[in-house]
Formats: sequence, C-alpha cells, structure tokens
Amino acid sequence: MTVELISVGTEILLGNIVNTNAAWLAERCAALGLSCYHQSVVGDNGERLREAIGTALGRSELVILSGGLGPTTDDLTKETAAEVFQAELVMDEHSLERIETHFMERRLEMTENNKKQALVPTGALVLDNDNGTAPGLLLEKDGKRMILLPGPPNELVPMFEKKVAPILQGLQPGVLYSRTVKLCGIGESKAAAQVQDLIDSQTNPTIAPYAKTGEVHLRVTARADSREAAKALVKPAVKELKRRFGRAVYTTREERTLEEAVVKLLKERNMTVAFAESCTGGLLAGRLVNAPGASAVFETGYITYANKAKRKLLGVRKETLKAFGAVSARTAAQMAEGAARASGAEAAVSVTGIAGPDGGTDEKPVGLVYLGCYVQGTVWTRECRFLGNRAKIRESAVAAALTFLRSCILEDRAYKE
Amino acid sequence: MTVELISVGTEILLGNIVNTNAAWLAERCAALGLSCYHQSVVGDNGERLREAIGTALGRSELVILSGGLGPTTDDLTKETAAEVFQAELVMDEHSLERIETHFMERRLEMTENNKKQALVPTGALVLDNDNGTAPGLLLEKDGKRMILLPGPPNELVPMFEKKVAPILQGLQPGVLYSRTVKLCGIGESKAAAQVQDLIDSQTNPTIAPYAKTGEVHLRVTARADSREAAKALVKPAVKELKRRFGRAVYTTREERTLEEAVVKLLKERNMTVAFAESCTGGLLAGRLVNAPGASAVFETGYITYANKAKRKLLGVRKETLKAFGAVSARTAAQMAEGAARASGAEAAVSVTGIAGPDGGTDEKPVGLVYLGCYVQGTVWTRECRFLGNRAKIRESAVAAALTFLRSCILEDRAYKE
Repeated sequence: MTVELISVGTEILLGNIVNTNAAWLAERCAALGLSCYHQSVVGDNGERLREAIGTALGRSELVILSGGLGPTTDDLTKETAAEVFQAELVMDEHSLERIETHFMERRLEMTENNKKQALVPTGALVLDNDNGTAPGLLLEKDGKRMILLPGPPNELVPMFEKKVAPILQGLQPGVLYSRTVKLCGIGESKAAAQVQDLIDSQTNPTIAPYAKTGEVHLRVTARADSREAAKALVKPAVKELKRRFGRAVYTTREERTLEEAVVKLLKERNMTVAFAESCTGGLLAGRLVNAPGASAVFETGYITYANKAKRKLLGVRKETLKAFGAVSARTAAQMAEGAARASGAEAAVSVTGIAGPDGGTDEKPVGLVYLGCYVQGTVWTRECRFLGNRAKIRESAVAAALTFLRSCILEDRAYKE
Repeated sequence: MTVELISVGTEILLGNIVNTNAAWLAERCAALGLSCYHQSVVGDNGERLREAIGTALGRSELVILSGGLGPTTDDLTKETAAEVFQAELVMDEHSLERIETHFMERRLEMTENNKKQALVPTGALVLDNDNGTAPGLLLEKDGKRMILLPGPPNELVPMFEKKVAPILQGLQPGVLYSRTVKLCGIGESKAAAQVQDLIDSQTNPTIAPYAKTGEVHLRVTARADSREAAKALVKPAVKELKRRFGRAVYTTREERTLEEAVVKLLKERNMTVAFAESCTGGLLAGRLVNAPGASAVFETGYITYANKAKRKLLGVRKETLKAFGAVSARTAAQMAEGAARASGAEAAVSVTGIAGPDGGTDEKPVGLVYLGCYVQGTVWTRECRFLGNRAKIRESAVAAALTFLRSCILEDRAYKE
C-alpha cells in the first residue's frame, strides 16, 4: 500500500519548526511496510490544502495529514478533508465530552472555539486523543483513505502508535515484523561497517541502521504470510547482530529506552544511583526519571553548577579545582565520589564540561566533557569530545553518561582506567 | 517572488534523516522576503522527480532543489532538471579542475563517476562548492528559475549564504519583516480569542498564533517596499498586542526563550535562584541552563526524588509529608524555602507532582503538580493539573515553574495566595 504524508502548517513553510513529524511518520510507515514516495508541506490555506490533498489522493492509496486540527480559524485540515470527501461536519458528542472533561480537569475555561474541535465528518472513525483536545480522524471513500492527526508530537506519536498502527497493520497484505537491536557506545559509521555485508546481502529480512544521539538502532524487518513466518526470518538476524555487537546491545525491545535499560540494570543489581551534574544542569537525572519506576533506584541528584556548590555539596577539593579546573577528570571523579558519599547511593555519575557557546579555550575547547562514575568503591573517569551547539553537546553528554554508568556496572574493561 | 522547495532523497522518505535542510532553507527564504507555499520531498527516482519539478514550476517562480547531486547513478537531480529545461549537459572545465584539486589535496583517488559532478547544463550559472565536490547550479528559462544545491548541510548552508542569498536579494521587489510577541501563562485558545478581531481584520501585517508547551507565540508579519516601511507596519500591531497581554508578554525578541527571559529578569534584580525538583527530576534546572550565561544566576539545584532526600537536603518536615503527602502545597512550600535556605539563593522554585503513568489516585490524579516559589522571604504555592503522558506532564510542569517564578518576581497579584 502506498502512503503519502502532508504536513500542514505555515510555521513549517516559514522554517519556524523542523518537520520532525514527517521523519517520525515516515520511519513508522516504512516499518509497517507502507511505500512512501511523496511528502509535502502546505500552509494553513484552504485552497492549497485542497489541491495538495487532491494530488496526493490521485497517486497514493492513503494520505496521512498532520497539523491544522487546532481550535483557531486558521486550522483548516478537518474542514478541507471533509470537503474533498464531500462529508458534512457534525458534532461528535463523545469528543465534545472528552474536550469538556479536559478543560474541567485542568480547571481551565473552555472557549467557544474549542467546541469546533469536536466536529467530525460524517462516517469518519474518531481516534481519541489522550494527550490533547483535537481528536484524530480516519476518513474513507472509494478505496482511498485519509488519516488526520494533531500536529504536536506528544499527541501525534501516541495516537499513531495506539490507534493508527493497528489499523494499518490490518490493511496490509502479508505480515511485516520488525525487531530493533539498540546499541550504545558505538558510532553509526562503525556500526554500519560491521554489518555492511548483512545489509548488502539480505532482502528479507532487511537491516537498516538509524543514528540517534549516542545510540545506533538496527532495524531488522521481514515480510511473510504469517507473523510466525516473519518472526522466524527475523530471529537469526537478530541473533547474529547480538553476537557481533555483544555488550554494546542494550536492548532488543522496541519500546525500551536507554534510561529504562539502565534503571532495569540498577534494579537487578539492587543498586541506587545518584547524580552530580554541572554542564548538563539536571538533564541527566531528568532523563533517568523518564523511565517509569525510576524511584526504585533514584533518590537524590545534585546540580552543582557553581564551584562553590561542587565544594559544599560534593566535597570537591579546592586545590583540585584550582590545579585542574572544574572541567577535569579529577573534578569529575571527586564529584561522583562525593555524590555517592552524600546520598548513600551504591553508584553515582558526574558530568562536568564546556557546553558553549562561550567558555572554550585552546586547551579546553567547547564540547570537552568529563564523566565520572562511582560504583561500589571504584571510580572511573572518561573524557569525551562532542560536536554541535550547546543543546546538542548537553544531549550527547547525557547519553554518554548513561552509557558510561551501564558500562561501569557491567565492568566493561574498555572503560576501566 | 514565490519559491518552492524540493528535497530529493529516499533517506528522507524512509524517515532515516530529519529534513533539517528544508527548515533552514525555508527560514532563510522567508527572511529574504520570498513567499513559500509548498515544500515537497521525492526519492531518487527520475520520473517522480520530473513530475515534482513540473508541478513546482507550474505554480512557483523559483524552485530550490537540494540533494541528488552526488557522484553515484542514483543521483539524478541535475540530469532531471536539465531535461525539464531541455538543456544539454556539458563538461565544465572550471568545476572539473576544482574537483581534481579537491581529491589531490586530500590524497584521495578520484573515481570516474566523480567527473560526472563537473557536467553542467548549458547556460547554467555554476555555484562553486567550497566544502565538497558537487557544484551548485542556477538554471533559468522563460522567467522560471531552478537552483540546485548539494544535500549535506555543511555544503548547502555556506553555498546558500555566500552564493545564493546575494542573487535572491537582487531579484526581490518588496521586503518582508516579522516580529514575534511571546506569551507565557496563557493558553492558545484564550490568547487567540483575545486577538481574533485583529487576526480577522488585518492582512498587512498578518498576525498568527503558534502554540508551544506553556507558551503562545504571536507572529506579526508585514510586507512593504522597504524594510523601514515593513517595520513601520509591524510596530503598531506589536504595541497593541503588548497592551492587550500586559505581563503575559515575556519578550518580543525573536531569539529569546522563556528561560533566557527568566535569567535576564534574575540578573536585573541581582538575584540567584535554586531549584528543588521531585517529579521533574532535574529538567527545570536543565532548562534554565539552556540559557547561555545562566551561571550568573544559578549555582545549585536539588533533585529530591525520594522523601528521605526532601527531608535531608531541604528540611521538609516529616509531619508535613505524613499529614499532607509529598505531593501537596505544604511540601512544595517547604521544598522552596529549604532550597533557598540551603543554597543561600534569593529565589527558589520547587516542583512536586505525579507524572504517572502510575501513582495517581482519585484525590491526587496523574498530572497533579504543586509548585512552590520563594522570593526574598515570601513563599507562594500553586496547584496545576496537566494532561498528557509522563513526558508531557513533566515538560508542562517545567514551563509552568519558569512562568511561576517570573510571576512571583514581578509580584503578579494573580498568583498570590
């Protein structure tokens, strides 16, 4: 089945936001076995949107539209899609009730234009929005389908996963089955080089690498008549990838994130962890807490942005700061030790570095980050150099710190100093 | 002048990469006063690319293509563009020389297919590539133009800035000018309702609302013969928006974020701030630290995920936790006071809530968050209810906490309890 993506929003045309929705939807559609040959972007303009929908329906069986379902008058996606399929808009009491509840629960005033969001084209399947007010919609006519999704990624992603993906799976001939082998602590080029022979020689299953910050995901996908048959094709390839990458594989579960894998590992070892953060300023602890159930392994974090705080809260020695600087392996080590001591946790991770844009020198350039890791009496440190802007450097440091903690717990010799 | 962007590359259609080029080009084109109504993505396929170019030229005066200029056989952009304009490809000796030099300098072997990159359509203007082997091209026919740029951002960006932008500036009649009025502490629907009359009645300047987490941005855009004239059209509209929204306007500077506005305010008041975070687990401090120069106002943060840590680091009373629970206004108040006391900061913000997915009860549902704010001896608290998943609730809590801190410093009566 062919699919085409239309992203609606003048803010995309003006370059105010990067179209991450299109990339995410494209990846998920490819994983579901849909063939995507076109993506397009149009603004909040009825005429051009109508034209774009017409063109897309003329060449693709399914059109997924995202954005333009908001309450304001420049949100036109639903109205335009209904018009193209010659469907009337009627009030959906179920959606109206959900929207009213949404506002009541937040003790917010519901304005008249929010009611507009509960209007749906006759005959459309309503996809409940658990994270916002605009319901999604599935419209069908003459063998062509349109799926309308809200623009905010935190609404679009769960709606697609929970409501849309199962429907698309049901529409597909044959069965597609994927598994993802997730790696940390290895770069994309190196990972790709290690599996180039498999990528080149295999067509079913296929193996595709995806680069993420500090991670590489290898997606193995097979198509067969039954789920069992597709699974049987995928299994040996996953096994081979696990053999080749060893401990760099942190999970083969689709939904498990690196922070969840780290929380699981800490639970298994019956360990708690503390954090001591400087340049990441809380993002490392913040990411671990993404994992539901993190409270079982995490109690305390110290954000010691100033040297004074590093000394007072973590006991970093004045002489160390003076002789080696706050951005140094010694300081990182003392931060990790200090965090473990102060909190009583079995493990502690520290981050200190120069995220920029200012503060870099020839000797200590922007992007230089030291990690410290204390695990039950032993301290490791690691020097990293990250490229990119301030946000990217901090994001990379967080991913590296989680990977480092995992490696130290697993006593990976590669990191021992 | 109307411009249209076509991104060429199967890797975009598969979602392997996010189309950051399109966002970057769109922003630059808007800043140069070009009107962009369409963006599209096609794969490395001659037929579909030809169709896409035809459609784009039919409705836009200028088409900017990026990607597909590489040396391999699946790079087809130049060949297809030449075909559409019925131009022959001829060897460009200047480009060939540059490519040969490129390889020689890097001591790399030049393969036969690299020569293909020096072929250019007759009559095309060649745009030298200082960062790679594929030259850019400007083609013109019957009043329509095509600009072909290489896909890698580190080649595309400097080529556009140095070679393309000056050409486009020369081609432009009018000038486009935008300002953004950024609001916090007000929902999108409410904000839109307050300016609906302006949105409906104005065409130059236009006013468009953009919803962000915990924020609403109102973009005011005007077109005129000169930058000064466009500015003069925008100015009264910005003034009117500032009058209507008052203190909810945290900035009218395009590049300033909420965290930067808060850092600026703290600097002006000569105050430092400390954070005491539970459910946000460091994300609040992490967001403040996004602002370069945050070190002037931020020294210490406490992540007290466990009750034990709340007691030990912040001095939250055992009886308070027992009688009211960790997620309560009283606990939030003691966390904020404790953070200020322990750190010596003039201001402190606390967050304690239930981010889910577990831990909610009828009385204290998932999404219930209490904020505490201490400013020079006074403590305020605020109860919030957020919807969405765990990540969204935490993101919303961070934005609300920054807004709350700002309001308390500004002594906004609306928040006083």
